[in-house]
Amino acid sequence: MYQELVKRDDLDAVLIATPWNWHTPMALDSMRAGKYTGVEVPAAISMDECWALVNTHEETGVQCMMLENWSFRRDNLAILNMIRAGLLGEIMHAHCSYSHDCVGSYFFDGEGNPRWPGEFLVDNNRNQYPTHAQGPVLSWMDINCGDRYASLTAMATASKGINAYFARTKGPEHPTAKRPFKQGDVVTCLVRTQKGKTIVINCDMMLPRPYDNRWSVQGTLGIYNEQRNSVYIEGRSPQSHQWEPFDPYQTEFDHPWWTELEPEAAQAGHGGTDFVELKMFIKAVREKGPTPVDIYDSATMSSIIPLSEASIAQGGMPVECPDFTRGKWESTKPKFAVV
Amino acid sequence: MYQELVKRDDLDAVLIATPWNWHTPMALDSMRAGKYTGVEVPAAISMDECWALVNTHEETGVQCMMLENWSFRRDNLAILNMIRAGLLGEIMHAHCSYSHDCVGSYFFDGEGNPRWPGEFLVDNNRNQYPTHAQGPVLSWMDINCGDRYASLTAMATASKGINAYFARTKGPEHPTAKRPFKQGDVVTCLVRTQKGKTIVINCDMMLPRPYDNRWSVQGTLGIYNEQRNSVYIEGRSPQSHQWEPFDPYQTEFDHPWWTELEPEAAQAGHGGTDFVELKMFIKAVREKGPTPVDIYDSATMSSIIPLSEASIAQGGMPVECPDFTRGKWESTKPKFAVV
Repeated sequence: MYQELVKRDDLDAVLIATPWNWHTPMALDSMRAGKYTGVEVPAAISMDECWALVNTHEETGVQCMMLENWSFRRDNLAILNMIRAGLLGEIMHAHCSYSHDCVGSYFFDGEGNPRWPGEFLVDNNRNQYPTHAQGPVLSWMDINCGDRYASLTAMATASKGINAYFARTKGPEHPTAKRPFKQGDVVTCLVRTQKGKTIVINCDMMLPRPYDNRWSVQGTLGIYNEQRNSVYIEGRSPQSHQWEPFDPYQTEFDHPWWTELEPEAAQAGHGGTDFVELKMFIKAVREKGPTPVDIYDSATMSSIIPLSEASIAQGGMPVECPDFTRGKWESTKPKFAVV
Repeated sequence: MYQELVKRDDLDAVLIATPWNWHTPMALDSMRAGKYTGVEVPAAISMDECWALVNTHEETGVQCMMLENWSFRRDNLAILNMIRAGLLGEIMHAHCSYSHDCVGSYFFDGEGNPRWPGEFLVDNNRNQYPTHAQGPVLSWMDINCGDRYASLTAMATASKGINAYFARTKGPEHPTAKRPFKQGDVVTCLVRTQKGKTIVINCDMMLPRPYDNRWSVQGTLGIYNEQRNSVYIEGRSPQSHQWEPFDPYQTEFDHPWWTELEPEAAQAGHGGTDFVELKMFIKAVREKGPTPVDIYDSATMSSIIPLSEASIAQGGMPVECPDFTRGKWESTKPKFAVV
């Protein structure tokens, strides 16, 4: 029983990498056992779970961090440094996406039977996997430390991708080619913050396409576009209204977490990103300090799952985003990746 | 008086390139005078104007076309041919944008006084300029000829870009650096069609940035991404889930309107696009046939202006999109650029 495991005296921390519906229950038990808790994405899949994480953290005083690795990507951290240096001015808008064709590899087995993630596609129509998109955007926009998500609206396309995949690969009479799924192929969420920023969050996992995150962030002085690997910064970019390459900015604004990285670490998962993430988590455990991503950010990113489901079910009605910080967002200073 | 001008017997057609609020009134008079009418974008700026265009066209039987040139772009027409050849499968989702920093050049004069387009930014918060984004998407998605816009939700950022521009260029005490504007910097619309397709439409004209349209369209077999100038097509692209360059497809699926173009035409506005557009308009006038873009598409594209304003004013509430075809969308066959 994992409940016994998390109580062991010879453990300092617990990493949870189980099916989505086990993330919150196991994280609660881990926090209650006094263990630093790292939980895979998403930290929660319902609003009750989001609040349970926040409340249990506050009751126990134990740190819990969702392991959203794209917050630690080298390019995304350089952009964060540029934003904090004021290069983009006041941030107004961002776009982000998790665009990854996962029908044939992740959601279903070779016979067309849903694996555990695929089970969520039968009865739920929502942004199933919103945290990789949001990870860097949260810190780019000072969410929960100067601003907060205020409202969300969402729409989903019809559900065609799964049926089309199995009709194409197994024939039109295959059961999964005809089975109805609630999950739409592409879900688009539109979030507005308390201070008037907006974010487009796409989830696009059911159609054939290359992997993409499509990050873009813009402010009153400039813009970064990940697809173009380019920036434009008023008064600094050499040509008016012309993109310039991001690469020199990557060098100039590289984050110390990456410049101090041992060469061999770059061989680790996702080009070293997973190494940096776990290194900073373990540093927090060793120093008994706060984790780099806190429980409020973990709950906020995860809450897009139930919020999008509620909005889609009501034809795109705007739904209110809860303030997991209970007002602390106004006085909290940015702390992610501040060194 | 233009009312006398449009009645002249020696005119076959009228082109209207006036401030936005004159487009519909002049188009109505031109149709009533029996003249083929080409009207600059947007054709209308209110729902009443959209319906007046449709009703007057139906009452008079006179053709009226909004001059949306990006529908005629060489790349966009090649994509249309690819879609009609089935390469992308069933179309599910598109993204499009009009991203063009127009504060210093178009909306305001050198002293910071609003020019006529800038006057709309004082009291209106909406997608002010939605047609360049939508032009190609309408035909990619068979809007009004097999499908139709069903509902829309929209959000706008706060209004910071105009004040920031004039604070930067004229000093923080300049009146336009302090004047309040209702118009948000970036407006995002989310449209769902009757058949369950979705479209993200951005309008982004108030912040410093390079020009962009950010077209992307995807279906059950593949995706086109304009920013990457790339496609991925299942079963055809050489590497699974890897982009390949669009250029060979441009050659293979080039539209006859462009392959038959005289070399000198490519010197005309927007790389020949404006030439193709006007050539096809004039061809319709000479042959007394239908214009390439009809009044229903013109009204649909323009209606995003008042629809987005209504949704934004209600905090992103979904609003119903009118069916300007009054049910004819179900039986109408695609005709734009069919040769």
